[in-house]
Amino acid sequence: MQRTTSNKMVTLLSYGKLASKGSPTVEEESKAPPTASGPVPLNTMDSHVNQQQDLQVFTVGFFLAQLLGVLCVALAGAWSGHYLGGFAWQSVPSLQFNYHPLFMVIGLVFLYGDAILVYRVMRNERKKILKLIHAGLHTLAFIFVVVALKAVFDSHNLAANPIPNMYSLHSWLGLAAVVLFSLQFVCGFVSYLFPGVSQYWRAWYLPVHVYFGVVIYVLGIGACLMGITEKLIFSLKSDYKDLPGTAVLGNILGVVLVCFGILIVYLVTTPQFKRQSLPEEENLQLTPHSPIN
Amino acid sequence: MQRTTSNKMVTLLSYGKLASKGSPTVEEESKAPPTASGPVPLNTMDSHVNQQQDLQVFTVGFFLAQLLGVLCVALAGAWSGHYLGGFAWQSVPSLQFNYHPLFMVIGLVFLYGDAILVYRVMRNERKKILKLIHAGLHTLAFIFVVVALKAVFDSHNLAANPIPNMYSLHSWLGLAAVVLFSLQFVCGFVSYLFPGVSQYWRAWYLPVHVYFGVVIYVLGIGACLMGITEKLIFSLKSDYKDLPGTAVLGNILGVVLVCFGILIVYLVTTPQFKRQSLPEEENLQLTPHSPIN
Repeated sequence: MQRTTSNKMVTLLSYGKLASKGSPTVEEESKAPPTASGPVPLNTMDSHVNQQQDLQVFTVGFFLAQLLGVLCVALAGAWSGHYLGGFAWQSVPSLQFNYHPLFMVIGLVFLYGDAILVYRVMRNERKKILKLIHAGLHTLAFIFVVVALKAVFDSHNLAANPIPNMYSLHSWLGLAAVVLFSLQFVCGFVSYLFPGVSQYWRAWYLPVHVYFGVVIYVLGIGACLMGITEKLIFSLKSDYKDLPGTAVLGNILGVVLVCFGILIVYLVTTPQFKRQSLPEEENLQLTPHSPIN
Repeated sequence: MQRTTSNKMVTLLSYGKLASKGSPTVEEESKAPPTASGPVPLNTMDSHVNQQQDLQVFTVGFFLAQLLGVLCVALAGAWSGHYLGGFAWQSVPSLQFNYHPLFMVIGLVFLYGDAILVYRVMRNERKKILKLIHAGLHTLAFIFVVVALKAVFDSHNLAANPIPNMYSLHSWLGLAAVVLFSLQFVCGFVSYLFPGVSQYWRAWYLPVHVYFGVVIYVLGIGACLMGITEKLIFSLKSDYKDLPGTAVLGNILGVVLVCFGILIVYLVTTPQFKRQSLPEEENLQLTPHSPIN
């Protein structure tokens, strides 16, 4: 079925505006589909799916999440770029380290968070496009993560007195998050972007992909919190307790990361915000058995 | 409606055994209820609800979670009781501290984790009983958390050189978890154990209670991970990188805490494991709008 141009052009803002607070829920709609005599939503031509969902809360949450996400990146930038001494590459390994927190926050938190939101934000877009944007954002996130890892390993190995790698709990759990992210990336790519993979496998893997997507995200934020703790204690030592600017900013970065994470997980797991299938997808539906709707 | 004694006596193990792998899902059952001519499950007399659900995975997950939970407590006990020097109360503030990690792991992780699982584990029990067990386990968890806080504040305040309180990211986020836990405790108690509270309020608050229940739990585990990181760096300093026994055990404790958390959240959020209403509850059902099914 061919979709209209107007449908493609529906923007995120329209979802919130067009869905009224008192509209029936998805479940109510599915039990009692609107009849010809019932009220006809205004946006029938633009959005045949989302008229059934109350997405005002989602829209507000999405914009708040973007604000918090940008704030996370800005705080991480200010923390590493100013308070921890700024940036350099291999010429000054101690400053090369500073790419690690900034790029992890950009990749594993901000871009990753937006990547897992894609299906719920661009809900009128075709699934093929959504998959490509989801994979594209994750690819970008992955590049930042790899450079962030290169920065921290270089900063350890190239130091005048080399620092051992992979001994702290932060490094164990951080690497676990990155390894799981890589596995998830490969499995997701093979399962959903390669033609010829069976519908049975795609349906079986979907809930695993969704649940571990959220697990890796939360684990990544947890690793950031441990990393901030480590860096503040290693660099400030007993001065941490006097809460100098570096400590205040690092702590605030941690708090904002947690707020961003709580909001993203809320937006991505609330069943009421789930994207509904487009008409042309309905015959192709998988039968997901998702642990998080 | 009076329930039979045999129904009350159904044990957890029976759920897994009685539910067959190939049985229809809850959704399928609700669409096509079994007719008189259809196959009659063996456990009709014992469990009129759970026969519809495949709970083998849940049962295995539950027992694995108990193993991991006990392992968390054992590792925290060995870490604080042996590697960090053992226990004392106010006479030796530095050892009084050691109650902090142990009691937080017992309260905020193990007991809290089991408390949020109650509805899915004791699924044939009446809702009133489940609420009391849920509240009872949380009360026990809360007592451990309060003693754990007393231990850390005392260990700071009573030290020969008093240590400031509440400066680290661990303390900020840990206290946030405890404050949210307290609020959740009071709101849950008033909403669901006080008679006379309106069904509308109970239904409105349920998804908030459920979502923040999981958020507080994950935040609590995150605070534990930061706490382990802090304690290892403060106590071992540059020896952390040589991974002595204290460091290995602390790191392993962190990894097991994460595994326990991932499993508990899986068991408590997977829609397929959700407790179904008992017949006598069906007329009293709230209309939950839960962000996590």
